[in-house]
Amino acid sequence: MPDIRLPYLLYLGDAGPEFGAKTAQGVLHWRPEVCLAQARLPGCAVDLRLKDLSFSEAVERGARTLLIGVTNRGGVLPQHWIPHLEEAVKAGLDIASGLHERLADVPELARAAADFGRQLHDVRHPPANLPLATGAKRTGKRVLMIGTDCAVGKKFTALAVHAEMERRGLAATFRPTGQTGVLIAGSGIALDAVPGDFIAGCAEALSPDAPTDHWDVFEGQATVLHPTFAAVTTGLIHGSQPDALVLCHQAGRLEMRGLSGRALPSLRETIDAHLAAAQLTNPGAKCVGVSLNTNDLSERDAHRAIAEASAEVALPATDPVRFGAGALVDALID
Amino acid sequence: MPDIRLPYLLYLGDAGPEFGAKTAQGVLHWRPEVCLAQARLPGCAVDLRLKDLSFSEAVERGARTLLIGVTNRGGVLPQHWIPHLEEAVKAGLDIASGLHERLADVPELARAAADFGRQLHDVRHPPANLPLATGAKRTGKRVLMIGTDCAVGKKFTALAVHAEMERRGLAATFRPTGQTGVLIAGSGIALDAVPGDFIAGCAEALSPDAPTDHWDVFEGQATVLHPTFAAVTTGLIHGSQPDALVLCHQAGRLEMRGLSGRALPSLRETIDAHLAAAQLTNPGAKCVGVSLNTNDLSERDAHRAIAEASAEVALPATDPVRFGAGALVDALID
Repeated sequence: MPDIRLPYLLYLGDAGPEFGAKTAQGVLHWRPEVCLAQARLPGCAVDLRLKDLSFSEAVERGARTLLIGVTNRGGVLPQHWIPHLEEAVKAGLDIASGLHERLADVPELARAAADFGRQLHDVRHPPANLPLATGAKRTGKRVLMIGTDCAVGKKFTALAVHAEMERRGLAATFRPTGQTGVLIAGSGIALDAVPGDFIAGCAEALSPDAPTDHWDVFEGQATVLHPTFAAVTTGLIHGSQPDALVLCHQAGRLEMRGLSGRALPSLRETIDAHLAAAQLTNPGAKCVGVSLNTNDLSERDAHRAIAEASAEVALPATDPVRFGAGALVDALID
Repeated sequence: MPDIRLPYLLYLGDAGPEFGAKTAQGVLHWRPEVCLAQARLPGCAVDLRLKDLSFSEAVERGARTLLIGVTNRGGVLPQHWIPHLEEAVKAGLDIASGLHERLADVPELARAAADFGRQLHDVRHPPANLPLATGAKRTGKRVLMIGTDCAVGKKFTALAVHAEMERRGLAATFRPTGQTGVLIAGSGIALDAVPGDFIAGCAEALSPDAPTDHWDVFEGQATVLHPTFAAVTTGLIHGSQPDALVLCHQAGRLEMRGLSGRALPSLRETIDAHLAAAQLTNPGAKCVGVSLNTNDLSERDAHRAIAEASAEVALPATDPVRFGAGALVDALID
């Protein structure tokens, strides 16, 4: 997948209340420096509080890629946006999208991109010629976020660990494995869309040989104990060959997301199942800490929940949103 | 994926020595009754010893689908076959292919299929709108082949177990999960081509609720201990929810296929790793027997190797090619 040229102009169209802006908000939160402005049609209900610019104004000020920043249920592109997006391509912008519907499958956009030499990035759709994993050990250090469930804070924790490593002057690269992560980083592969045979191979390709003291900080996906999505987690864990795992969990969650009646595994079961998988390609893999999402708790209850989680598995624990990722980075470099 | 209409006319083109006929031979071996005849161009070096028929002769005698029975390295369709295949569609045949290159992407074939109301089956390419797994338990019984490696005899064992069950008058359905299996059965999904998020969901969809005494006999894929392909195995094992596992192994194989220097796991390690995965969606899952591929051994050595494997894991063992699948079916219905 070619890298996405930055900075972005964030496209919000005339998104009404049926649209979510999670993608744009994620990119803006983590990389405000690559979000130059927003572009909207009359009637747009979403406002990211960025300057509103036309396509040509944005290009003049250095914008390189129009990021589709909102998505509706179903992930389809509203028809009446297409002429507007075509104008963006003609004005000199690439387009990046995390929609299910592929930009490259829209004839007007495919033609405009070809005519004007622009790229269309469909981050939900993997490129052709994917690699197979070899299992061969690579140089450099790798940490992978694992979890008790989907949507417990794995991406956030990876980004927070990476940011804290950079703050300390450590050599580190964030390795996204999901679509929002790819758009934040401007590179990477959304592994959930990759055919099964190639998931581990893509995870290997995402983090090539690196200097001995360099950290690849991998966004995690789902859990090996999730009956729906464990295939992706398994390929990711084998291909990323992590030296260290960080366990992510949402305090108080009792049932697996989307599977009513299925209890969440315990922290210990989760660690053991992921270590067993990780040790297939890296016998030295260890779990080094816990990232607890305490969003639903008071600060006092959060401290208590973190202390309990830490005691339960005898590892350092923190909530990186509330208290920073310092404790996790301390554990990693230990 | 719509079912493939049977019987087949096996297409061999003008395949030279650079082509393999594994697909056609597999279908012919397991389901001779659905292989009506073969169709060849002048100069063809492959001969399956079936009657040679033209497309219109074959249609008159009841053939419904032209199966591309040979494949070259790379899985591409020779250009000069295309007009010939177009004739087949015009004569009234659907086409089924396990090639990497998609029939539906060949404009002449796509147009002919649309004009003449025929189907093009690209079994390596999954259909759109794939399902997500729910993990909900289904009625009926399921057995899944697992293995110490790729290509140890999982498809063969599943077909042999299924055939033996039918011979005994048991209610049983073969559930293919790879391309040759799909072509043999005329239905199913090749899971290795399915995006990671949907592998378990497809395995669930392949074997819906069934009568209590009905067996779904699942072809296996790779192994959860293979660093390249374990993602597919994991999704398959979670989605198929097997009550019983049959362990497949090739006697004498020491290294994993395609991964030089990586030792094969032991029979016991393989069973334990697959049981751990299977018990996530079916806590009652058990391994009931061993299928040993003794192809490289004398008959005396084969008996000895089978006895040793049986003793090693304290389970019945056999080589279904040499000695039939009776011992495995005995263990399953026990």
